[in-house]
Amino acid sequence: MAEAGREVAARVVLQQCLYAKLQVKPPDRDSEAEWVEIKRGMVVYVCFFKGAENAIIPKMVTSLLNVKLSETDTGKYVSIKDLPGDVLVVPQATLGGKTKGRCMQYHSNAGKEQGMELYAQFIVQCQQELGAHPTWTEAGAVLHHGTYGNRQVLQLNTNGPYTHLLEF
Amino acid sequence: MAEAGREVAARVVLQQCLYAKLQVKPPDRDSEAEWVEIKRGMVVYVCFFKGAENAIIPKMVTSLLNVKLSETDTGKYVSIKDLPGDVLVVPQATLGGKTKGRCMQYHSNAGKEQGMELYAQFIVQCQQELGAHPTWTEAGAVLHHGTYGNRQVLQLNTNGPYTHLLEF
Repeated sequence: MAEAGREVAARVVLQQCLYAKLQVKPPDRDSEAEWVEIKRGMVVYVCFFKGAENAIIPKMVTSLLNVKLSETDTGKYVSIKDLPGDVLVVPQATLGGKTKGRCMQYHSNAGKEQGMELYAQFIVQCQQELGAHPTWTEAGAVLHHGTYGNRQVLQLNTNGPYTHLLEF
Repeated sequence: MAEAGREVAARVVLQQCLYAKLQVKPPDRDSEAEWVEIKRGMVVYVCFFKGAENAIIPKMVTSLLNVKLSETDTGKYVSIKDLPGDVLVVPQATLGGKTKGRCMQYHSNAGKEQGMELYAQFIVQCQQELGAHPTWTEAGAVLHHGTYGNRQVLQLNTNGPYTHLLEF
């Protein structure tokens, strides 16, 4: 069996992609929906729990951007920074859900304001870490992210999502 | 923070979709790749750990197929059985990974033979539970699944993946 868990401040699911497209603004009366797109890279679904502090973020960012989960053309696994590949961060509060009977409850999730602040910090620090890595910046790779609190309308095209769970 | 964990026999990630397409046989010299497709429904990524027993499967199947995570046209959440929606099961051993430094290790995963047997049983019991639910069968909904051990080349189109983690 897997090792027993512990208090968790943040939960992240990673999927590798060849292409992904995410709605960042829904359509309204006056304007069409807005989308962001990434090419080959990694989708980072992130959820913060109650009690999570800003201090957790540098550790998350370092871990997620340096873990070797991205496959090169020769089948070697390297970090997303070294691939170098695009990054799409998707706020995904549903990852904090726990079943109660047939329903899902989200009582452990960070509150809206706290979650929004942690998410904003997470994006800033991801951008800083990627921006400081010449291999990544010189390749013209991009970081895009979804809008906290919105429905995350997503399309994904993979050569194997290679789904991983990381908790912090 | 989220509640501390415990021994885990299986880990499942669920995503809702409008459409999904999965390769079930890679191309070879003599034939093209084979794919399965689902329409509106749920993608079930599943990973078994060492020590998991067949006895866990009925509980998993009941929980996954009855939890209310699928959105109707009127915005109500119902089970995939009641939606009724298609189901795509994707074996995803990577979900058992744990970071060690910058690398990912899979020491807790079920061995290949045991994993394959559990996966096969899981599919059979999902099909039985869905097949016994007239709302699901009469709508012509389908269950498809990936090939254990293969690369899971996947395309996904969502109206929000609404990603959930369930552990058993």
